[in-house]
Amino acid sequence: MHSFDKAEYDVRVDRVRARMAQQGFDLLITCNPANMNYLTGYDGWSFYTPQIVAVSQQEDEPICIVRGIDRAGGFVTTHLSEENMLGYPDHYVQAEDIHPMDWIGGLLVERGLGKGRVAVDMDAYYYSARAHAALEAAMPDATFVDAANLVNWVRVVKSPKEIAYMREAAKLVELAMQAGIDAIEPGTRQCDAVADIYNAQIRGTDDFGGEYTSIVPMLPTGVGTTTPHLTWNSEPFQHGEATILELAGCRMRYHCPMSRTVHLGPPPTRMAEIAEVAVEALNVAVESMRPGVTCEEVHAAWNRVVSRHGIVKDSRMGYSIGLNYPPDWGEHTLSIRPGDTTALMAGMTIHVMPGIWLDNWGIEISEGVLVTDTGAERLCNFPQGLVVKD
Amino acid sequence: MHSFDKAEYDVRVDRVRARMAQQGFDLLITCNPANMNYLTGYDGWSFYTPQIVAVSQQEDEPICIVRGIDRAGGFVTTHLSEENMLGYPDHYVQAEDIHPMDWIGGLLVERGLGKGRVAVDMDAYYYSARAHAALEAAMPDATFVDAANLVNWVRVVKSPKEIAYMREAAKLVELAMQAGIDAIEPGTRQCDAVADIYNAQIRGTDDFGGEYTSIVPMLPTGVGTTTPHLTWNSEPFQHGEATILELAGCRMRYHCPMSRTVHLGPPPTRMAEIAEVAVEALNVAVESMRPGVTCEEVHAAWNRVVSRHGIVKDSRMGYSIGLNYPPDWGEHTLSIRPGDTTALMAGMTIHVMPGIWLDNWGIEISEGVLVTDTGAERLCNFPQGLVVKD
Repeated sequence: MHSFDKAEYDVRVDRVRARMAQQGFDLLITCNPANMNYLTGYDGWSFYTPQIVAVSQQEDEPICIVRGIDRAGGFVTTHLSEENMLGYPDHYVQAEDIHPMDWIGGLLVERGLGKGRVAVDMDAYYYSARAHAALEAAMPDATFVDAANLVNWVRVVKSPKEIAYMREAAKLVELAMQAGIDAIEPGTRQCDAVADIYNAQIRGTDDFGGEYTSIVPMLPTGVGTTTPHLTWNSEPFQHGEATILELAGCRMRYHCPMSRTVHLGPPPTRMAEIAEVAVEALNVAVESMRPGVTCEEVHAAWNRVVSRHGIVKDSRMGYSIGLNYPPDWGEHTLSIRPGDTTALMAGMTIHVMPGIWLDNWGIEISEGVLVTDTGAERLCNFPQGLVVKD
Repeated sequence: MHSFDKAEYDVRVDRVRARMAQQGFDLLITCNPANMNYLTGYDGWSFYTPQIVAVSQQEDEPICIVRGIDRAGGFVTTHLSEENMLGYPDHYVQAEDIHPMDWIGGLLVERGLGKGRVAVDMDAYYYSARAHAALEAAMPDATFVDAANLVNWVRVVKSPKEIAYMREAAKLVELAMQAGIDAIEPGTRQCDAVADIYNAQIRGTDDFGGEYTSIVPMLPTGVGTTTPHLTWNSEPFQHGEATILELAGCRMRYHCPMSRTVHLGPPPTRMAEIAEVAVEALNVAVESMRPGVTCEEVHAAWNRVVSRHGIVKDSRMGYSIGLNYPPDWGEHTLSIRPGDTTALMAGMTIHVMPGIWLDNWGIEISEGVLVTDTGAERLCNFPQGLVVKD
């Protein structure tokens, strides 16, 4: 059940420890399920109760602490020894007067890890305000500092094995996108198209199936295309309306997203024009990517094309992707937007996603991209233009 | 696109405001997407960036604030007026130096809501430690207190329209469960069974389709059944092994879960015996439920049956269900466990889920239950025993 050899996890933990040393962190505690998986292999839909991985400068092996009933899942999915794969008692779950972080903090103190500078991901999804308060109270001799997504930043450059999973995820999203495009017809219910998408995304190929993606299929349609994050309902698609498909494939929790836009019947002239501009600008952006180029330079390359056509976009147009859990497949590190001076490095994987949302409709055409030693490579091989179905 | 008439939202907001008054709260701010939907109808997979609904004693209508690009989704899904359906600028998203709560807190102060006792859901999934710190800093004249899931507790009793959605969700999980049971065969890949489950769960009936469930299909198999939260992979099911299916149907974001256990080939004698006990105890627990009975009394009724057979279980065996978003379909209010003295009320919907996990395998057989005026009613109509496939 292991996604990687123990040696790969050891390298990751060493990298995290080296960054911790640079920043003077004695202990790092992360609640981010992707970080937990990255450091130990721990996998399971158990992040709805508090759980952590702790990396210490004093111990070689990370400590993983989950709800008691999930501990056996750690034995199945991680290489950790029994004493470092721990579970807290069930009466701590969703209780008014006690919190799992009481127990977790107490355990870390017992293990001699309750002192010094303790870094936590202050903005991680599953690290609630109450979790933080409870952990601080349970570790009174520690000085808490924001880890500022330290592990996320280590994750940003992928290993060859990780890239192999990303390529498999790309294959899965190609299948899902084709299934979605095939299904969208006037009179077909949105839910039926989504059933076809899930079927392709999960059934996958003869060699491997897919897993749940960190964001569900999104397919805003009609006026819904003015906004990116509506999901589906049971209404039929309409002739004369556009539908945006934003999908991903997921393999071993690695994601490759892709967006395309479908129009039922002849599209408005302006929509067809903007779709052409969107494809051109997307490809100019991808062609601008190589090690050393900054994120804001990629945005500028894209912007030079679209601004010639009177398009202004103030939301970001890309972000790092890879290993993840709901609710987001983005890694919360680099963003393709003005002001982000992160330099690209070989092995980064990025969703170049320049959605254009106007008052009455929108267009999304996006690509998952791998930064190589000399440039950038699209992970998927799928036609890019506005899909017009008559 | 509205799930309920405006009048139903008004009743909900009034109830919340009455509880706020009892507790001396001037303003309630919730990040919980289910609470946001409950109070306004707001729906979308946008909870991966900070967003809130604020209910004030001063204003009749709640204020909903989301990421700018998601504001149009609020116009589609809510009845809110434009001035109360707001979006923050995109450069606040996932930035190191600024946080969306800076903007949100500033807006609330501008609207004259920055004073008095401000209640926040301290343990909500998407209310991070950093979000809380930013909001406190942006509202320096407010006194922050824990709302302690105030809105969740209002949600716990369902209206007739909500119950109608729960019944539709029950129909969806029946279809999904049957698809899963049909698909599980020796040699079939887990991913292929899950593709069939999704297909049934989303395609639904001719009258309505299904939506994404807040927890993905869980089907631990073999040794994985010792732990509840493993998802699927691409390996085939094996003759001689059990698989636990924990699934739900989702309709208008209302969930009905159900669990069943399948064994390929003749089951071990002890497993067959425990499955019978599990069904008996489950039904005794359901029969014990009626208004006025406490959660711990339901647990005790269950426990009297299983303890006669030497089974000890220290994790909770049920919780409130309904409207929800990932990562959990539980409402984080009442739990069926010792020490929970919440009295049942008509209109509550509960997942009675007494999983039994032993060292080498586990059994889950569960039911979604509606508390009625005189007792309790199973929402699904589906055979309960261990499913043995030869």
